[in-house]
Amino acid sequence: MSSLEADLEELAGIGADDGGVSRFAWTPELQAANEWLLARLDELGLEAEVDPAGNVVGRWQTGEGKALLLGSHLDTVPRGGRYDGALGVCAALEAVRSLRYDGVEPNRPVWLVSFNDEEGTRFRTGMLGSRAFAGECELADWETRGVPEAMREAGFEFKRLGDASRLGEVGAYLELHIEQGPRLEREGIDLGIVTGIVGLLGFRVRFLGEANHAGTTPMELRRDALAGASRAVLALRDEARAREGMTANVGLIRIEAGGFNVIPGEAEFTIDVRSPTAEGFSRVEGFVHETLTNIAAEEGLDLDLAQTQRLDPVPLDPSLQDTLERAAAAEGASSIRLPSGAGHDAMVLGRHVPAGMLFVPSRGGVSHNPSEFTPPEQCELGTRVLARAVRDLVS
Amino acid sequence: MSSLEADLEELAGIGADDGGVSRFAWTPELQAANEWLLARLDELGLEAEVDPAGNVVGRWQTGEGKALLLGSHLDTVPRGGRYDGALGVCAALEAVRSLRYDGVEPNRPVWLVSFNDEEGTRFRTGMLGSRAFAGECELADWETRGVPEAMREAGFEFKRLGDASRLGEVGAYLELHIEQGPRLEREGIDLGIVTGIVGLLGFRVRFLGEANHAGTTPMELRRDALAGASRAVLALRDEARAREGMTANVGLIRIEAGGFNVIPGEAEFTIDVRSPTAEGFSRVEGFVHETLTNIAAEEGLDLDLAQTQRLDPVPLDPSLQDTLERAAAAEGASSIRLPSGAGHDAMVLGRHVPAGMLFVPSRGGVSHNPSEFTPPEQCELGTRVLARAVRDLVS
Repeated sequence: MSSLEADLEELAGIGADDGGVSRFAWTPELQAANEWLLARLDELGLEAEVDPAGNVVGRWQTGEGKALLLGSHLDTVPRGGRYDGALGVCAALEAVRSLRYDGVEPNRPVWLVSFNDEEGTRFRTGMLGSRAFAGECELADWETRGVPEAMREAGFEFKRLGDASRLGEVGAYLELHIEQGPRLEREGIDLGIVTGIVGLLGFRVRFLGEANHAGTTPMELRRDALAGASRAVLALRDEARAREGMTANVGLIRIEAGGFNVIPGEAEFTIDVRSPTAEGFSRVEGFVHETLTNIAAEEGLDLDLAQTQRLDPVPLDPSLQDTLERAAAAEGASSIRLPSGAGHDAMVLGRHVPAGMLFVPSRGGVSHNPSEFTPPEQCELGTRVLARAVRDLVS
Repeated sequence: MSSLEADLEELAGIGADDGGVSRFAWTPELQAANEWLLARLDELGLEAEVDPAGNVVGRWQTGEGKALLLGSHLDTVPRGGRYDGALGVCAALEAVRSLRYDGVEPNRPVWLVSFNDEEGTRFRTGMLGSRAFAGECELADWETRGVPEAMREAGFEFKRLGDASRLGEVGAYLELHIEQGPRLEREGIDLGIVTGIVGLLGFRVRFLGEANHAGTTPMELRRDALAGASRAVLALRDEARAREGMTANVGLIRIEAGGFNVIPGEAEFTIDVRSPTAEGFSRVEGFVHETLTNIAAEEGLDLDLAQTQRLDPVPLDPSLQDTLERAAAAEGASSIRLPSGAGHDAMVLGRHVPAGMLFVPSRGGVSHNPSEFTPPEQCELGTRVLARAVRDLVS
């Protein structure tokens, strides 16, 4: 068993939960995983600590200038898989190990991080650790979500969260992660070089029509809120299918006070639309407003549209993409460039410093699930490519 | 105030419930309404009784042959309106009154009925009284719904329900009712001559797709159960719009284990489709099966389709339609022929004897609601037309 496999196996045992893994922010399970990581960093001779936001940070203070930061996260969704986050942390460890074992003297500091609370499981937010690290604290929001109490119980101080801000000392960020989608596997490609993190718009839509008798109301006189919602579902899908990189999803729908023989008088549903480019993102926003307004007018419905989420797309650094692509080719790995449809800590870091991400395939595209899997040889290959890119960047 | 208005006003006070009316089978409220009706029948010299199924039946045993039965029902939905059912009973009373006052000697018996439990509020069934009267008892089903206990508490015997069967003595049935739809009002027509009661098919549909991440799953690889349901909603509507008299409704929908960023892996919904003709009814049934099967195949979904209800259409008697139309013309009332999209006691009677129905307009098409309303002059006009048709049929 390789050291990478051994590390993954050990981590999967910390917070093991019915075939999966459960490690949430400021819980004993995540704390145990952090302690495991601190010990590994110590073995490698890095100065390691848990910062005021609960991030584990290891510093190899060598060379000059700003650090190259490598990492991912060790927290999980409830009963998540063993690769999401943990693989990136272990790959970063391997990259540092290989530099150490080969006696490389980096020309700049090399740091390793495991960000706290990437998944946002416990407080229904996300990327809390990397946001604090990047100086993007949202204290008022986090306070309403119970973060101060959780921190206090774990021996942390909410008011010291701002002290975690260390991005001024960082020059670039690299993260390896599982794809969490099916594309690499289906196309038989070893690695994905991430071009950017898609922007996300969330909406809550309410169509108000008129509840009425399903048998006695002529078809042409109906104001059917579900018919309006159905048109929206399909219009969004058609648009997403026609636009490169765009996705659209209606994930929740609810009909008010219905009955099988009652025309739906009210339908409430959510929209999740994503686009990887600034131009596509802005077009998507216009499309949602225009489409819903037109459907409401044509169907005689009242429209109540609220935007619930807005995350602008974050392009990743083109030069780091080139570095990763060269490293892949040098290791004999096939690669494609693709956007990430999910958020990652690299999205937060990428708003401030050059950031790069490398995807390894996810079997069946499955993630956030105990059956999440990437074959050991693909984990190893991705890790070798990451290590080669790091060596390139610090030489 | 006319005697019709006075009767409606008195009945609206029996079981009055927060602006509406609540009178359910075998409750003190419906019993009080029945006693009120028995007193009116007694005033008119009819032999009146409550039969073993809780129907109030008044008999004017005159002339020869089988009886002309007039009536409707006095039970209501919870907090229903004052016209649904009650207007038909009061109109029948008026028709008999006018014969009596004018000294007409009918050439055949004239009976008046208020059927029990037309709405099915209490036992989630419906037309229990008219079904018992027509010899269509479904004792096994009714037993599971708690009918025996309710009857016993009200002093009735479940095992005597079969004794209510009296349709052998009836030659024809006439019922006046509110339209419960918007068509007469919108078209400015006084009366509707009902051509038949639409047939109804109910289905429960389950589409099974695959729950997946809304951001990382490419559009072309999704198996979105809600997209399938949306296509079904719109395909059913398109078909209903293209077919004379057909209606279609998806009144309930539910998504399993969703989230705003999760592709719906399962969608369950109901279908209520209706058609007034036997040919249309059979075509509708085929359309539902074929459409859902095609959508499932095209969307990569598994389909679980269960038929939950089937009521064949019941054509009403063409000769009685002619009689009603002539009576309307003689009273100076405009009329159209139209199907009834809702069930009525006339549907049960119409399976066995010639039956006719007359609709008066419903303001805004509203029914099963305290705001149900038909202007007094339209109630009067409908009642005069009914009375004239009765006089025609017994002369």
